[in-house]
Amino acid sequence: MADSEAPRAVVLLSGGLDSATALAEARAAGFQVHALTIFYGQRHEAELVAARKVAAAQGVAQHVEQGIDLRLFGGSALTATIEVPKDRTPDAMVEAAIPITYVPARNTIFLSLALAWAEVLGAFDIFIGANCVDYSGYPDCRPAFLEAFENLANLATKAGVEDTGRFRVHAPLLHMTKDEIITRGLALGVDYSLTHSCYDPDLQDRACGRCDSCRIRLDAFRQLGRTDPVPYVPNP
Amino acid sequence: MADSEAPRAVVLLSGGLDSATALAEARAAGFQVHALTIFYGQRHEAELVAARKVAAAQGVAQHVEQGIDLRLFGGSALTATIEVPKDRTPDAMVEAAIPITYVPARNTIFLSLALAWAEVLGAFDIFIGANCVDYSGYPDCRPAFLEAFENLANLATKAGVEDTGRFRVHAPLLHMTKDEIITRGLALGVDYSLTHSCYDPDLQDRACGRCDSCRIRLDAFRQLGRTDPVPYVPNP
Repeated sequence: MADSEAPRAVVLLSGGLDSATALAEARAAGFQVHALTIFYGQRHEAELVAARKVAAAQGVAQHVEQGIDLRLFGGSALTATIEVPKDRTPDAMVEAAIPITYVPARNTIFLSLALAWAEVLGAFDIFIGANCVDYSGYPDCRPAFLEAFENLANLATKAGVEDTGRFRVHAPLLHMTKDEIITRGLALGVDYSLTHSCYDPDLQDRACGRCDSCRIRLDAFRQLGRTDPVPYVPNP
Repeated sequence: MADSEAPRAVVLLSGGLDSATALAEARAAGFQVHALTIFYGQRHEAELVAARKVAAAQGVAQHVEQGIDLRLFGGSALTATIEVPKDRTPDAMVEAAIPITYVPARNTIFLSLALAWAEVLGAFDIFIGANCVDYSGYPDCRPAFLEAFENLANLATKAGVEDTGRFRVHAPLLHMTKDEIITRGLALGVDYSLTHSCYDPDLQDRACGRCDSCRIRLDAFRQLGRTDPVPYVPNP
């Protein structure tokens, strides 16, 4: 089947390790991929640059970058000027329950935009790299949330009402540990050197190695006996 | 109760007749109102100007304008360059089922952004001027959609998970006819001369009088024996 005849899917692509893997899963499942990156007033553009590289490397049909200024609402470490926590142990991350890096309603907003684009494209499949193992504290990474969104999508749209198809939210990484995600991605040919996960990179976009996101990622590569290919700030 | 002690609500304010009335309902219900206007690549700015006037006239606590470029996705008369239908009878509007002025997933996106802001504000109440009488063709104006979103909101957020309150989506105009909405709004002191409903205004922002939105509005004022206070393009 030529790629142009393949069913279309919208893939939310942040430029991080998880979404790069979710994109590879969508391609492996036979979809023509339309990648959507949402730039929401992050403090650095490293993620956006990574998203462009990942989209290009994986040969997506289309890549749209949509900007929303969530800073207008305030309220999160990723959009406002709150200190990103560093050097937390896995236990401390779990104890913290909902991390201060939680962005209010972020995945709801992301999925809504993906849904709008999917409807225009005649697509019924939306991929998101949500994970409820490492991100158990994020309410909008839980299976119940994703099911509720899928239900909403089929009520919210012309396509849903006219019953020309049913929207499906795919979260292929939902129950995987980080090392399982990396193993799967490597098997699918994902180039993790292009991705960016750090919450607090330096001016050369090198990962800090100390925020929750870096620590989870580094631990996973270590468990696999591999070296994370992205550049890190040297240890002091 | 001083306004600063009142519970907060986020009100979606387009600048149209319905949302201006929904805002007045939120104030009448005792909420401190935070108005959210979403500018999504409309072909004209008349709605945005109207939203500012309505917010100022009704004395909101805060008015945020959030921009999203839905033109990046294409697909609707309100965001792309498709001809707006004119001079349709009420029957023709109903027969058309889902109007071409339907914007994919618009209310899902709007409510998601309102939810994000509500969570930051510590608000649990969101008002939307959705109506399932005149806009029966829009999937995202139906009661089932609004209920599904309310359910989602309580799964999607820190506030929902920590059970510090339950989000409520208020659609006070849902089952009202347009003349009932106007009657209610006038009783609440809404100044409809500040609102803008037309899909295709002229360069002086005068309403066309011929698109579905103008026709529904004009008919309602006529039924009430009143004159719509907004300026219209003179009949040829």
